[in-house]
Amino acid sequence: MSEEFPGYKGTALKALKSAGAEIGDIIRIVKDENTYEGLLIPRSEYGDDKHIVVKLKSGYNVGIRITSTTRIEKVGAGVKPAFVPPPLPKRKPDLPKVAIISTGGTIASRVDYRTGGVRPALSASDLYSVVPELSEIATIDAEILFSLFSEDMTPRHWSEIAKAVAKHIEGGASGVVVAHGTDTMAYTSAALSFALQSLPVPVIMVGSQRSADRPSSDAATNLTGAVAAAARAPFAEVVLAMHETVSDKFIVFHRGTKVRKCHTSRRDTFKSVNAMPLAKMEDEQITMLTENYRRRDPTRKLDLKPDFDEAVALVKFHPGLNPKIIEWYIHEGYRGIILEGSGLGHISKYCLSAIRKAVENNMVVAMTSQCIWGRVNMNVYYRGRDLLEIGVIPLEDMLPETALVKLMWVLGSFKPRDLNEARGFMLTNFAGEIGPRSASTKSP
Amino acid sequence: MSEEFPGYKGTALKALKSAGAEIGDIIRIVKDENTYEGLLIPRSEYGDDKHIVVKLKSGYNVGIRITSTTRIEKVGAGVKPAFVPPPLPKRKPDLPKVAIISTGGTIASRVDYRTGGVRPALSASDLYSVVPELSEIATIDAEILFSLFSEDMTPRHWSEIAKAVAKHIEGGASGVVVAHGTDTMAYTSAALSFALQSLPVPVIMVGSQRSADRPSSDAATNLTGAVAAAARAPFAEVVLAMHETVSDKFIVFHRGTKVRKCHTSRRDTFKSVNAMPLAKMEDEQITMLTENYRRRDPTRKLDLKPDFDEAVALVKFHPGLNPKIIEWYIHEGYRGIILEGSGLGHISKYCLSAIRKAVENNMVVAMTSQCIWGRVNMNVYYRGRDLLEIGVIPLEDMLPETALVKLMWVLGSFKPRDLNEARGFMLTNFAGEIGPRSASTKSP
Repeated sequence: MSEEFPGYKGTALKALKSAGAEIGDIIRIVKDENTYEGLLIPRSEYGDDKHIVVKLKSGYNVGIRITSTTRIEKVGAGVKPAFVPPPLPKRKPDLPKVAIISTGGTIASRVDYRTGGVRPALSASDLYSVVPELSEIATIDAEILFSLFSEDMTPRHWSEIAKAVAKHIEGGASGVVVAHGTDTMAYTSAALSFALQSLPVPVIMVGSQRSADRPSSDAATNLTGAVAAAARAPFAEVVLAMHETVSDKFIVFHRGTKVRKCHTSRRDTFKSVNAMPLAKMEDEQITMLTENYRRRDPTRKLDLKPDFDEAVALVKFHPGLNPKIIEWYIHEGYRGIILEGSGLGHISKYCLSAIRKAVENNMVVAMTSQCIWGRVNMNVYYRGRDLLEIGVIPLEDMLPETALVKLMWVLGSFKPRDLNEARGFMLTNFAGEIGPRSASTKSP
Repeated sequence: MSEEFPGYKGTALKALKSAGAEIGDIIRIVKDENTYEGLLIPRSEYGDDKHIVVKLKSGYNVGIRITSTTRIEKVGAGVKPAFVPPPLPKRKPDLPKVAIISTGGTIASRVDYRTGGVRPALSASDLYSVVPELSEIATIDAEILFSLFSEDMTPRHWSEIAKAVAKHIEGGASGVVVAHGTDTMAYTSAALSFALQSLPVPVIMVGSQRSADRPSSDAATNLTGAVAAAARAPFAEVVLAMHETVSDKFIVFHRGTKVRKCHTSRRDTFKSVNAMPLAKMEDEQITMLTENYRRRDPTRKLDLKPDFDEAVALVKFHPGLNPKIIEWYIHEGYRGIILEGSGLGHISKYCLSAIRKAVENNMVVAMTSQCIWGRVNMNVYYRGRDLLEIGVIPLEDMLPETALVKLMWVLGSFKPRDLNEARGFMLTNFAGEIGPRSASTKSP
């Protein structure tokens, strides 16, 4: 491996060197009948020694296997932007103060063509250069906390983010924006909803599905909307702000415990489940969609409860599920299991004795539904009643992912003395995670 | 426990006996300030010795804990229907022959108030008595294969159902209806879609969300629609027939590999995902919604491939997922893992070495997305490319549940010699499980 050619070795490295190409250069590769032209970018450390990766004009990357007949040609030197920061705008002292905490992900980055890597672009000056409108809305205090792909986020990171948000709120911020990768953003939204009890001001999670260097990027719209909401929204809850539809016109604010990523690539990927969104925004005007929310009140004292216990499993039931998996969790000392049951909250009879054993071993076992929409009801069929009698907790209309995060939080932050106390916490509505029975439960 | 009072023992049994109440009687229980009146029904064998279960007029069951101050009174003797079968309608020889295979579930039952249990009502004469319209549509050949809650269905049952369907098709049926509980009906639909290759006639899976003894039941509409489609539909595929909306007007036919239960209780719970439904029905008239389907052709030779290998795991990724779970599957001799990754098909870096180890141990590891809607694309980010290089198979827009069933089928029915052959089968479109890239991927 080479420092100048990160990820390249063997045949691929040799071919690049003999073509005189450097990372960031525009190269042309001719192989069989195909020609690929684009920016030479670094590879992952897990790569083999035969492929060269090129970023095409479309924005997508392609890996090309080098053989003895492949021709490589340097077409042009790469554009190597100097990243000269623009002058900071004059601070307007009457603007609200908004903190932006960057944790990584597409929204917090732009591609650095010199390294091909993702470059966090969230110093205040970088932000003003990418989205100049921000200087009209708020005075930004930007902090790069992590630069993580969100799939690498763990419960320990949730704690760190919660503490960072608390620090900014205690420092007088009118609202806090958390920029985050979209993959696990809904899990982090739930985690912050629980960890930040008694919020005085809004906390807005925001992401983007397309990076800022692509024409269809949603990054600027989402970020502007998030900052405007942090500065002025009437609510004081943890919400997730993203496109409402594929149009750039509307931003929608989903309650942090009721939101789910529902599409791999669309810009309106996030949907409120078993609930209406809290609010929406058009032209920076916020419209509340419910009367049932916690009002902004900067005098309220934040109650930070940032601890999560990772010894909680999520078990999705399916035909053929091996009950030994539940016994393995018992053996490994897990303290809780969230079941993603079928229908109204069921699992097969083959799993009942393992579930009973888990409860006897003081594990908190609670039920959600893999249907996603709707509410568990374990009184309708025998199987549900069997599970209730064993001691499984029916989690109403809670999303499985929210239930997982909540159980980690209940065990970590309250350390309940027994199963009964744990059940009480799980069935207490801390952050809107349990909807009223009359709520709209429109399915997709 | 007592044979006349199934599930009752101890305090509860004593109280019932001293009130002179029998199973099926109408009883009134007064406890504290509450009065409960309804049918005394049996309890599950897992029950304690303190609760009495009563079916209220609403159709729901309630368990009441008996204390020393609880009063129990017999209000009336239970209605004990004799179940006298009506005379069979005269067979009209020109009607198409449709087989109905009952496997259990709400649609295949009506509540027997004598035992409180679920009574399969699928002899031909029972069916004609419940849904007299059926005798106008087809000559029914009814078979009770199982009486299972669908959460107790296993891959072995899928094989049995596939073989039973094949037997009826080879016996000259114009179509086969499979009545099934809704909880895992989508898994069975996928299983039959794979096991019944080269179908000559339609196979219609059908269920209901409300039992036939409730006024809002969808059982009769769904069953009539399913039989009409089995008799006359132009397609020869495995489909799932249920309400399209909450209205009784439309039945919709979802392709068996592209359908998912998306609400715990609504009658329109099933949705086609990443695909249009195949057809819909209004007033027994079928309208095809796509031109892309296999046509009915009774001369085509069915190719039955009914074997499933259960040694396949479904691992849903989430923050805090313990990679040791993957190593446990390796240790247990599993032959495949379907990952339900985040976003475009990602999992955390903490899991990479366990995944690599699984592949090195000849396990088939394939990727789907927990987003449900959309398509995995593992070329966009580093993590996806890392996983591809390790050997993880990207399963396009396949549902995770369908992918699980398919991998069980590929391993069981083809017994591939190596990972490369298994990959070839997983990426071959056997039953519409992989949609074209241009397909509608509207999210909820």
